[in-house]
Amino acid sequence: MAVRFEVTKECQRSRARLGRLYTTHGVIETPVFMPVGTQATVKTMAPHELEELGVEIILSNTYHLYLRPGSDVVQEAGGLHKFMNWPRPILTDSGGFQVFSLAPLRTITEEGVEFRSHLDGSKHFFSPEKSMEIQMALGADIIMAFDECAPYPADRRYVKESKDLTTRWAKRCKDAHKRTDQALFGIVQGGVFKDLRRESALELMELDFPGYGIGGLSVGEPKELMYGVLEDLVPVLPKDKPRYLMGVGSPDCLVEGVLRGVDMFDCVWPTRLARHGMVITRRGNLPIRNLPYARDFGPIEEGCGCYTCQNFSRAYIRHLIKANEILGIRLTTIHNIYFLTRLMRDIRAAIAADNLPEFATEFLSAFTGEK
Amino acid sequence: MAVRFEVTKECQRSRARLGRLYTTHGVIETPVFMPVGTQATVKTMAPHELEELGVEIILSNTYHLYLRPGSDVVQEAGGLHKFMNWPRPILTDSGGFQVFSLAPLRTITEEGVEFRSHLDGSKHFFSPEKSMEIQMALGADIIMAFDECAPYPADRRYVKESKDLTTRWAKRCKDAHKRTDQALFGIVQGGVFKDLRRESALELMELDFPGYGIGGLSVGEPKELMYGVLEDLVPVLPKDKPRYLMGVGSPDCLVEGVLRGVDMFDCVWPTRLARHGMVITRRGNLPIRNLPYARDFGPIEEGCGCYTCQNFSRAYIRHLIKANEILGIRLTTIHNIYFLTRLMRDIRAAIAADNLPEFATEFLSAFTGEK
Repeated sequence: MAVRFEVTKECQRSRARLGRLYTTHGVIETPVFMPVGTQATVKTMAPHELEELGVEIILSNTYHLYLRPGSDVVQEAGGLHKFMNWPRPILTDSGGFQVFSLAPLRTITEEGVEFRSHLDGSKHFFSPEKSMEIQMALGADIIMAFDECAPYPADRRYVKESKDLTTRWAKRCKDAHKRTDQALFGIVQGGVFKDLRRESALELMELDFPGYGIGGLSVGEPKELMYGVLEDLVPVLPKDKPRYLMGVGSPDCLVEGVLRGVDMFDCVWPTRLARHGMVITRRGNLPIRNLPYARDFGPIEEGCGCYTCQNFSRAYIRHLIKANEILGIRLTTIHNIYFLTRLMRDIRAAIAADNLPEFATEFLSAFTGEK
Repeated sequence: MAVRFEVTKECQRSRARLGRLYTTHGVIETPVFMPVGTQATVKTMAPHELEELGVEIILSNTYHLYLRPGSDVVQEAGGLHKFMNWPRPILTDSGGFQVFSLAPLRTITEEGVEFRSHLDGSKHFFSPEKSMEIQMALGADIIMAFDECAPYPADRRYVKESKDLTTRWAKRCKDAHKRTDQALFGIVQGGVFKDLRRESALELMELDFPGYGIGGLSVGEPKELMYGVLEDLVPVLPKDKPRYLMGVGSPDCLVEGVLRGVDMFDCVWPTRLARHGMVITRRGNLPIRNLPYARDFGPIEEGCGCYTCQNFSRAYIRHLIKANEILGIRLTTIHNIYFLTRLMRDIRAAIAADNLPEFATEFLSAFTGEK
């Protein structure tokens, strides 16, 4: 097995656990948040800055890299790590979610999905085998099975058929995947229907994947529904395999997800938020571009150890963002990524110290309370 | 005197010289190139990156900072150095050039210039006294007298009147300037008319400025005309004061300017070029965004010591720029600024080693020759 996972400690009062994920490019401490580098770059950031922030693993998008610069170019460069000069682990998604959310004019058949590029309208075809071929060329440490992600809301019949298709595609992915230095994770689907989720998990577990993505959540449903699905699904999943909640990254969801047994998260949210001039603080999100900060010469957050807070004032960052200066969104991105890597470190420390429930209560009340 | 200048060596076969400019925020080795940070940031760059590149001094724009965030905000932050967290020297221009090149609906009188903001159309008035007030609030180490920069081409009569006005305004600037930790430089005008240039210089020298800007060049006239003006003007200027050729920054002009006795340069060109996907190399400028570089896995320039060339390929940078990723223009900006700071270092070393003319011939033939 290319990737090995071990649970090093379990919380006695929740489903949270500490773990270690060993990959060819290094060890990841879990629970972990993965910033997203869609086009082989975490937007605005240089790779050494991500390392300095303590980022352990990033996610990159198969759909985007396939279209531009082309997976053949990345392969010729020596793979994604070398192409983008990122020495630590990478996870690529399967392209499924993007085909269903970005590409126009898609047609789904048993064989795969025909779609048009959102860049130039050109026609393409993704199948489980094609997704594996591309992801093998990109060379990430962890790759994902090609799935269909049902929209929300969707009726039970559609969600069931979609889940069944995802299971059949998962089998084809497993057969097509050949690189022993990569781990292929299956993706549990089933929408907000708990029985379909359990079915999906059991079907995938027969294929014995080294890890399980939980897809199709955080797509518009209320958070309580998502938490309910996790509470029901996680006990079905194998204890000794990592559980990856896909596309989820707001601080409250990270804490709630960990409490329910999730080991890995990714989301564009913290970096996208930063580019819209919003910064994350322990007391909620702050619209730094607004007028009240024009003469606020304190840092984004007192006591924050990030480069931004150590060196620049809210007034300066506001000025940069108002003036459309790139340094502005660099500084907010640094802060937001730091906030989340720091939060995950704090969560891990709390699990280690047997006080995660107390930590969670305190964090959530400050974060969702006064803004 | 806030700023002290010493010439440490003179080239025997050209007007080039080595110098040291002592300021409150550190010593600048001349000849020097100053990257431009129009809105209190050198576009795309963090201040520590500029330090790492060996940048000794940056220029910032009075007109822009006055309009946004407001010079009062910068003053309240503790001045421009503190506001933008740049510990080394800063030079601010007078706002004159921007008023004449950016602001619509301007009216020039003896008193000053009324203009409308290019941001919101609001009405403003700049006079020599107002320019001094703003530049004292910003707190740069070197500030510039408020001048009128005549366009090119312009008839002799207009240029003479404009030059005369600039002299009268220089006197008013000198009277209005009160900060002893700042040096106020005069600006020589006179277009491409050599006698007017000499007149302007002699009039300003009566006011005994600690340094002299040479304004109104590189505004559209052929380079040979600019070089001719420099050859005629520089011998008139005092030997013991720095000479600053404003708005000039292409590598060939830097070399030619130094040969003609210029000590300081600034220009938005290298950073703007970078944002358009053009990189400077010893063999001329390279359009890195073009197709031939899609599978070029070498650095921008072999042997270049910059972060970009040490870590990333032409193919990756091209991909980033095609995909509108900010890291792309960060990397090209780093390379271009490094190229110019390195070039100035090489020029200084050549003067020290008594071989500047040979260095210049070799550099210029490679740079302007094969591309």
